[in-house]
Amino acid sequence: MNDNLTAERATFVTHLECSLTGERYDADTLHNLSRAGRPLLVRYDLGGVAAALSRDALDARGTDLWRWRELLPVRHTNNVVSLGEVETPLIPIPKSGGANVWVKDEGRLPTGSFKARGLVMAVAMAKELGVTRIAMPTNGNAGAALAAYATRVGIETIVFCPDDTPEVNVREIAAQGGRVWRVNGLIDDCGAIVAKGAAEGRWFDFSTLKEPYRIEGKKTMGLELAAQLGWRLPRAIFYPTGGGTGLIGMWKAFDELEALGWIGSERPRMYAVQAAGCAPIVRAFEAGEEHAERWEDAHTVAAGIRVPRAVGDFLILRAVRESGGKALAVGDPAILAAVDDAARRDGLLMCPEGGATLAAYRQALRDGEVDEDEEVVLFNCATGLKYPLPAADQRLDRHGAIDFDRL
Amino acid sequence: MNDNLTAERATFVTHLECSLTGERYDADTLHNLSRAGRPLLVRYDLGGVAAALSRDALDARGTDLWRWRELLPVRHTNNVVSLGEVETPLIPIPKSGGANVWVKDEGRLPTGSFKARGLVMAVAMAKELGVTRIAMPTNGNAGAALAAYATRVGIETIVFCPDDTPEVNVREIAAQGGRVWRVNGLIDDCGAIVAKGAAEGRWFDFSTLKEPYRIEGKKTMGLELAAQLGWRLPRAIFYPTGGGTGLIGMWKAFDELEALGWIGSERPRMYAVQAAGCAPIVRAFEAGEEHAERWEDAHTVAAGIRVPRAVGDFLILRAVRESGGKALAVGDPAILAAVDDAARRDGLLMCPEGGATLAAYRQALRDGEVDEDEEVVLFNCATGLKYPLPAADQRLDRHGAIDFDRL
Ligand SMILES: Cc1ncc(COP(=O)(O)O)c(C=O)c1O
Ligand SMILES: Cc1ncc(COP(=O)(O)O)c(C=O)c1O
Repeated sequence: MNDNLTAERATFVTHLECSLTGERYDADTLHNLSRAGRPLLVRYDLGGVAAALSRDALDARGTDLWRWRELLPVRHTNNVVSLGEVETPLIPIPKSGGANVWVKDEGRLPTGSFKARGLVMAVAMAKELGVTRIAMPTNGNAGAALAAYATRVGIETIVFCPDDTPEVNVREIAAQGGRVWRVNGLIDDCGAIVAKGAAEGRWFDFSTLKEPYRIEGKKTMGLELAAQLGWRLPRAIFYPTGGGTGLIGMWKAFDELEALGWIGSERPRMYAVQAAGCAPIVRAFEAGEEHAERWEDAHTVAAGIRVPRAVGDFLILRAVRESGGKALAVGDPAILAAVDDAARRDGLLMCPEGGATLAAYRQALRDGEVDEDEEVVLFNCATGLKYPLPAADQRLDRHGAIDFDRL
Repeated sequence: MNDNLTAERATFVTHLECSLTGERYDADTLHNLSRAGRPLLVRYDLGGVAAALSRDALDARGTDLWRWRELLPVRHTNNVVSLGEVETPLIPIPKSGGANVWVKDEGRLPTGSFKARGLVMAVAMAKELGVTRIAMPTNGNAGAALAAYATRVGIETIVFCPDDTPEVNVREIAAQGGRVWRVNGLIDDCGAIVAKGAAEGRWFDFSTLKEPYRIEGKKTMGLELAAQLGWRLPRAIFYPTGGGTGLIGMWKAFDELEALGWIGSERPRMYAVQAAGCAPIVRAFEAGEEHAERWEDAHTVAAGIRVPRAVGDFLILRAVRESGGKALAVGDPAILAAVDDAARRDGLLMCPEGGATLAAYRQALRDGEVDEDEEVVLFNCATGLKYPLPAADQRLDRHGAIDFDRL
């Protein structure tokens, strides 16, 4: 029913490229990291895309993620998988944010988070390349998206998560046919288990940025934002940064759009938002480093950004610096206050990671880092319904004498 | 950024009409039920709409709910309220359903359920008509949608729910600025409290079908389905029926679309799906009655359809009969098995009410009531993430010797 899922696809992928050394790799075989131990990026014949597709033709398509097919790696229509990857709305939060603040509400995607963008693409490519068994470390949302799509195409999945991962995430993974294990450690400890099994040939390693295609899915956040705003970009983007795949992906998307001539050379200032209890990128940013050391004793209510070490650290830092943005840390109390405020005053229930971007925006406003007049987009990367909400306990006895004046 | 929210609106509402007697009421004042104690329906100058708007013009608009403005009651653009009412996707479930079975996934709407459709409209109209305080009984999802939109426009809300309402719903209402009370009874007991307070002039009664505008929002399910399918309708629709507002709304939508000349006279068979533990409409349907008596001792895991008595009972029964459909009851075990099966085999996590439609479809297939070749749409009215999922408990010690062969 959706043409974007069934249209024949011309493929413009030319090769994969090491993000550190620029070394070229063949696109039609399975890869994890490059020989230099770094993420591989997908490269396209953008001249060919520009000749084949106009902005107007694109605007005429349905607005879901698969409309971007010329800029995506899947070659064969029968490998496309979908659970309804809708364009996510931009929602103003005038009272809790300000007159020019928009929340991109990624909780509307399948499995309730933006992880669906990355995983729908990675799973489609896994199918295309013949993978039959996948393992992945997760803070919760990525595992749920993986399980859903892999189940749909019949690939077996094994997921490892920290043992304090939100209960709903763990159950969701299992319900959707994934096998899930709780590990007494953090996401990089889970990643080590996945890496060991992969080295033994037991499964394909789907850790973020360790296979080349999740980033291609995540970059659709940047493509979509440009299309939604009528082919311009906001002045600043606040992104809750764990592995940073979304931020790196958007940055790549903007370059591709400029190469197509669909946007100009201006870029938003990119703000990488982390929690004060786990802020390796902020520490590296402030120290002027190119790489970020592991953060010890990581803790924060925003489970999705509790990532002590990111394999794409240098790519995040590079994008933030090139853009004129910053890496910012916010404390858990500020995160929870922001979630509460957006819900109570603007009726928008965000996840803690989304709340972190609002808290960081407010801090940046106070510090004169952003101006009230600037158009800003905050990423709410998951539905707030996945996270524990404060209790609300008022009881009324229908048989008793109800005191209406109290209600 | 979305033209549908900001475009000037020509209004085509002519009047309100009693759904039982046809008596006319003025559209520009506040109403609850008609003098006959029945729901009021909004009537439009459809000839005027047909002259002002073509199908092609409509197809060119953004696909969100507010694109239907000529068929909606809001007169003034500044009363429009929005949290991003996206078009919900149609998702095939080939393994758990069949080759021609599509799920309309309403969980993508604001606050995670289709209640957003009804409440966004009712709240906008409450604002237009000067309401400042609203009370409502709810099984959970409607209260959450009301709280979110009312908070956004600054209307005070008081919500009453059965005391075993899913925890997440109660908390969500409170987080979004609604005042919520748990009552030791069912939704109609809550409704009685709301009615009493309304009679005393304490608030406006927002019970479903007791004010005329929720149904106008819900009818967008029918409008949207027709547009999505290229201006045709499926052969059958399975709808989880509590108050039945959505079913009644879709039936109204189809008539309006036919009056516009946008679809023909064919209609889907409408299947009203209820839980075996609360099936007043099924009982009335089978007995050939026009009205449904209250169902005593109602119980089911599908909280949203635990509605012992529906004020629009005769409208539901009328639509089901006119369409050549049926009212069907399914047991809780079949509901839970359907939810489990769709998640495990098609990667789609539905709410129990959505599961009920899949269970009913399977039953109808077995009974020869529907044919495998017929295109069928099931309504999954809320995200499955709001409901308790089965536990999943496998633990792994990262310090121990991991037996990879077991994983
Ligand atoms: C809700 C949420 N926000 C943000 C993130 C961080 O995303 P990224 O890995 O792209 O930095 C995650 C990752 O788990 C998440 O679940
Ligand atoms: C998930 C869900 N499905 C179905 C229903 C029933 O909807 P209706 O009142 O239109 O019959 C509800 C109502 O609460 C609901 O929450």
